[in-house]
Amino acid sequence: MLVILKSGASDDVVKQVAERIRDLGLQAHISQGEFRTIIGAIGEEKSIYPEQLRSIEGVENVVPIMRPYKLASRDFHPEDSVVTAGAISIGGGHAAIIAGPCAVEERDSCFEIAAAVKDGGANMLRGGAFKPRTSPYSFQGLGEEGLKILRECGDTYGLPVVTEVTDPRNVELVSRYADMLQVGARNMQNFVLLAEIGKVRKPVLLKRGASSSVADWLMSAEYILSEGNNQVVLCERGSRGFEPEVRFTLDVSAIALAKKNSHLPVIVDPSHAAGRRDMVAYLAMAGVAAGADGIIVEVHNCPEKAKCDGAQALTKDAFAALTKQVQKLFTLLGNQV
Amino acid sequence: MLVILKSGASDDVVKQVAERIRDLGLQAHISQGEFRTIIGAIGEEKSIYPEQLRSIEGVENVVPIMRPYKLASRDFHPEDSVVTAGAISIGGGHAAIIAGPCAVEERDSCFEIAAAVKDGGANMLRGGAFKPRTSPYSFQGLGEEGLKILRECGDTYGLPVVTEVTDPRNVELVSRYADMLQVGARNMQNFVLLAEIGKVRKPVLLKRGASSSVADWLMSAEYILSEGNNQVVLCERGSRGFEPEVRFTLDVSAIALAKKNSHLPVIVDPSHAAGRRDMVAYLAMAGVAAGADGIIVEVHNCPEKAKCDGAQALTKDAFAALTKQVQKLFTLLGNQV
Amino acid sequence: MLVILKSGASDDVVKQVAERIRDLGLQAHISQGEFRTIIGAIGEEKSIYPEQLRSIEGVENVVPIMRPYKLASRDFHPEDSVVTAGAISIGGGHAAIIAGPCAVEERDSCFEIAAAVKDGGANMLRGGAFKPRTSPYSFQGLGEEGLKILRECGDTYGLPVVTEVTDPRNVELVSRYADMLQVGARNMQNFVLLAEIGKVRKPVLLKRGASSSVADWLMSAEYILSEGNNQVVLCERGSRGFEPEVRFTLDVSAIALAKKNSHLPVIVDPSHAAGRRDMVAYLAMAGVAAGADGIIVEVHNCPEKAKCDGAQALTKDAFAALTKQVQKLFTLLGNQV
Amino acid sequence: MLVILKSGASDDVVKQVAERIRDLGLQAHISQGEFRTIIGAIGEEKSIYPEQLRSIEGVENVVPIMRPYKLASRDFHPEDSVVTAGAISIGGGHAAIIAGPCAVEERDSCFEIAAAVKDGGANMLRGGAFKPRTSPYSFQGLGEEGLKILRECGDTYGLPVVTEVTDPRNVELVSRYADMLQVGARNMQNFVLLAEIGKVRKPVLLKRGASSSVADWLMSAEYILSEGNNQVVLCERGSRGFEPEVRFTLDVSAIALAKKNSHLPVIVDPSHAAGRRDMVAYLAMAGVAAGADGIIVEVHNCPEKAKCDGAQALTKDAFAALTKQVQKLFTLLGNQV
Repeated sequence: MLVILKSGASDDVVKQVAERIRDLGLQAHISQGEFRTIIGAIGEEKSIYPEQLRSIEGVENVVPIMRPYKLASRDFHPEDSVVTAGAISIGGGHAAIIAGPCAVEERDSCFEIAAAVKDGGANMLRGGAFKPRTSPYSFQGLGEEGLKILRECGDTYGLPVVTEVTDPRNVELVSRYADMLQVGARNMQNFVLLAEIGKVRKPVLLKRGASSSVADWLMSAEYILSEGNNQVVLCERGSRGFEPEVRFTLDVSAIALAKKNSHLPVIVDPSHAAGRRDMVAYLAMAGVAAGADGIIVEVHNCPEKAKCDGAQALTKDAFAALTKQVQKLFTLLGNQV
Repeated sequence: MLVILKSGASDDVVKQVAERIRDLGLQAHISQGEFRTIIGAIGEEKSIYPEQLRSIEGVENVVPIMRPYKLASRDFHPEDSVVTAGAISIGGGHAAIIAGPCAVEERDSCFEIAAAVKDGGANMLRGGAFKPRTSPYSFQGLGEEGLKILRECGDTYGLPVVTEVTDPRNVELVSRYADMLQVGARNMQNFVLLAEIGKVRKPVLLKRGASSSVADWLMSAEYILSEGNNQVVLCERGSRGFEPEVRFTLDVSAIALAKKNSHLPVIVDPSHAAGRRDMVAYLAMAGVAAGADGIIVEVHNCPEKAKCDGAQALTKDAFAALTKQVQKLFTLLGNQV
Repeated sequence: MLVILKSGASDDVVKQVAERIRDLGLQAHISQGEFRTIIGAIGEEKSIYPEQLRSIEGVENVVPIMRPYKLASRDFHPEDSVVTAGAISIGGGHAAIIAGPCAVEERDSCFEIAAAVKDGGANMLRGGAFKPRTSPYSFQGLGEEGLKILRECGDTYGLPVVTEVTDPRNVELVSRYADMLQVGARNMQNFVLLAEIGKVRKPVLLKRGASSSVADWLMSAEYILSEGNNQVVLCERGSRGFEPEVRFTLDVSAIALAKKNSHLPVIVDPSHAAGRRDMVAYLAMAGVAAGADGIIVEVHNCPEKAKCDGAQALTKDAFAALTKQVQKLFTLLGNQV
Repeated sequence: MLVILKSGASDDVVKQVAERIRDLGLQAHISQGEFRTIIGAIGEEKSIYPEQLRSIEGVENVVPIMRPYKLASRDFHPEDSVVTAGAISIGGGHAAIIAGPCAVEERDSCFEIAAAVKDGGANMLRGGAFKPRTSPYSFQGLGEEGLKILRECGDTYGLPVVTEVTDPRNVELVSRYADMLQVGARNMQNFVLLAEIGKVRKPVLLKRGASSSVADWLMSAEYILSEGNNQVVLCERGSRGFEPEVRFTLDVSAIALAKKNSHLPVIVDPSHAAGRRDMVAYLAMAGVAAGADGIIVEVHNCPEKAKCDGAQALTKDAFAALTKQVQKLFTLLGNQV
């Protein structure tokens, strides 16, 4: 941690800061520059220290040296983690092709879609039973009934299933049906939910919040990891941006950065980023090219009657065509699907 | 709702869209332009319709005409709402001056700070007992013990208290101690929490998420209102931006827009926006000048030892000076403090 | 153009708007909804009309139906444009691999870098002679001397050259040396420069501004096209974002959108987006996967002594390795390099 | 400047970086932490050094200590600068109330508007003769004819005039007519234009670019100052944001930060930020409350026939009402109008 003093800071300030650093159990290295004094604080950096030192009058800025996450960091775990959901592996060269409806709407359509995505090359099935919707008047999902249908579909077609959990009180319930728990972008910093999910032993798909830095994202993973659940897969699904023709702005550098700074697998969700069907394939390919360990896309048998997000759902054929291209790209990059 | 077709859309598409509109129980008005056809859909706009119509091949875009929120909208409630927390009123010309520590850390400092903010002109006390922190290794608050201390401080100094609730399972607990429940920016779209809070009869302080539009914000208010709790105060605390010298970018136009589009009171939190003490007064004044019905600021007796966000906490004297200016500004604008 | 009136707008407002529409030489179609009246304005949409109609009291919003650009639009030119710079083609299946130093610093290093990029697979050479630098104290380029060196390097290695022009007074000068003129991101809306460049008959590389929508970008292309220069290649190099670990946020959906809405070729500049060498390859691949017709990257023989942007320059070997992967990806996508 | 090495960097890297620092004429202070080594580089920080040091393999990051601007910095010029345009002063307690049409459209309306703004309390007149427009098909201004009309209006009503210059070739021409030259947001990093403007001895109004940090903005001011023109007034007019109901997001913390980091006066342009008339007064007041030394607003005698930006133009009466409130606020804050 480096404490940069304001230009012209008095000797008293230097002394005060150095004492405070020693009070925190750290060593203080004073370095007098031409215009400013910098004090290095050496020892274990607790997350509160920068904030406290920045509070002292005469301090211009505090620069942390260590990243704030540990368990999620590649510094402490150099090789890629591999996460296992049902029979499939994600990360370390193993790619996930996850597809399915935005929400489980009813039994027949869910089976029809599951058959289609299996056929089209998916190795995992998605589908929401508890839907976080911007409007209280929108379809909120079928709840446990939806979980049951999804489970049956997964079993029928041999696809592990992933579904979102939005309520800390439902973690246990959802865990009974799902092979992987999803934390949505809007809940990325719902720390109560993260802590609860950290206590179960189910793999987790953690979406990046629409205005979260990669460090924020990895700190949210750290919440789960620090509770003992080390099966976390990260998922990029777009930042809030200013382009009116897409819903969110897919951030491929977040994918590359997360892979660089962390050992956790990262996948890409082009459907929620684009919010429109005709861009999904381009964004899926871009995410994989940036290093993603898989994709998660929405597919629907009848998009114009979907109860949620129909405009971004691929048809069965478009999904199959996309999967073929994505698989070739994984091969080119040296991964196996 | 206006459905804009792609240029050169065939008569079949026109027919298909018009039929789908009628299936939804709406009337279809077809308007053939020089380059494009537009179909007006007249009747009650359910939130799912635009999405479904946008899913039809040949549709370029769907423009909703109605705002998606109703109870929060000024269209249906033209006069300002006034929310009452303990003995104080917020909105409709009544201003809130809320101050206190970021977190309740221990009994003595909390009392000291409460005395100071009362003395400095606050009419309400803030303080966190359940703290949502980016890092799992940061101080997470004292929990119920913190609520008790806060309650005592409020009673001692005659200040209604507001504190954050982060867990749907704690809504009842927090409601026992607090006069007003706070929903933090990171939980603005934690719909499970919003629904739970909608069921109690306590006023709510709903912060805007760092990348939420005003419409998103009002939709979150709508979640609470639609459950029957109509005591919602909005709070602007900054958008995620690109300026490295502040933590968030205070969005004063969100304040003005929310006041225009909604009847709910709006206050401003300059402390979390700035993340630094020396800008709090400027941002507080700017928020009030933009139309805010009050301010919420952090004050600490010893910022450099604060367990959270010390760098943005005002000293007692700075708070008193700010309050004087803010009160003069409210008077200038025709409000009463 | 659709004019949406405020809810409860009087008959007088309806009449006034309809008259104004007719004054503009358009037809007015009035459509009375349950809550609002919408007036369609049919005929040629001049860019000023929406603004003027929005100015009338009682008008809530005006929704233009036509895109504001015409020459740049795929609506009026469905097939891909192919732009030719020297002997190479860009677009319509032809890919550009453009590489070279950020700035031409001196003769020897420029030749060394040119030889390296030719060897590594580039088909075009980049290098700045007039550098737009954030600081007036930074190296501003060698000017005409730099142009001469670049030209010689291009001729020696058989590579067409592209270089930036920043001053309308230099367009003629730069055109004498370069095969393609570059407009930097900071000048994307320097309309005076665009108009001047539109008057010469040289291909142009138009970078997207850091906070420009795709429509803004295509409007800037329209400035050049409308002056008669139809040889425009678009280049995505990142939006201003909130992630502190990269310089800009590469926006792959801008690439896909620009390809969809326009017939112009689009290439990707991963170097300026990342601002760091270790992410260039990932972003280059992502841009190509999203549909880019080529890449432009910075290469330096000795990055740590580069006079500008050394941290993002690839070494010769890294560039050759990247080119191999990029070429395989182009082949997979059906393009030729 | 602090050079932070990657964790586990070898002694060779430490040696190499230290040598490079000494090559640059600086002293190197090596500080070995528990996990990382940090090397302080002491001496004059040229803008190129961080970039070059960051280019060395094994370097994680370089933290500059000095701000990159000098002449614009309050560090070297602690008291407020006062800029004089015609007979009026801006800064140091003197407030500018600048108003007028977006563009000078024709003689009569310009006189009518000038009379109105004089009457309403303006002390300076604005009006564009060279208009940078997003579309090549929009009204581009009257050119020199517009400058003449504006000059006459200013002389008639005793108001100094400010007008935009967009072309380095026109700086001399515009300087003949105007009392103050305006650099628009889109040209904030048009360094060629800035350098040309730096050579004349006219005050300059420098708008902040829509995605420029405060440091970028002050670096652009530095371009003008470093050419010898020290009469620069900064103007905030909004960042590109994600809120669809406003054109740009007014950034009041940029105003407060610029005032803190620089001695230059700062004013606020609420009209271009909002893009809509009904929010102008709120944003104007917010800007002044955040510390702005004045406002610049658009006023039109007949907004619905304005050739540019009519939707954001105030009527004469709205302007007069705003001015009264703004003057009271300046008085409250201790400034004089």
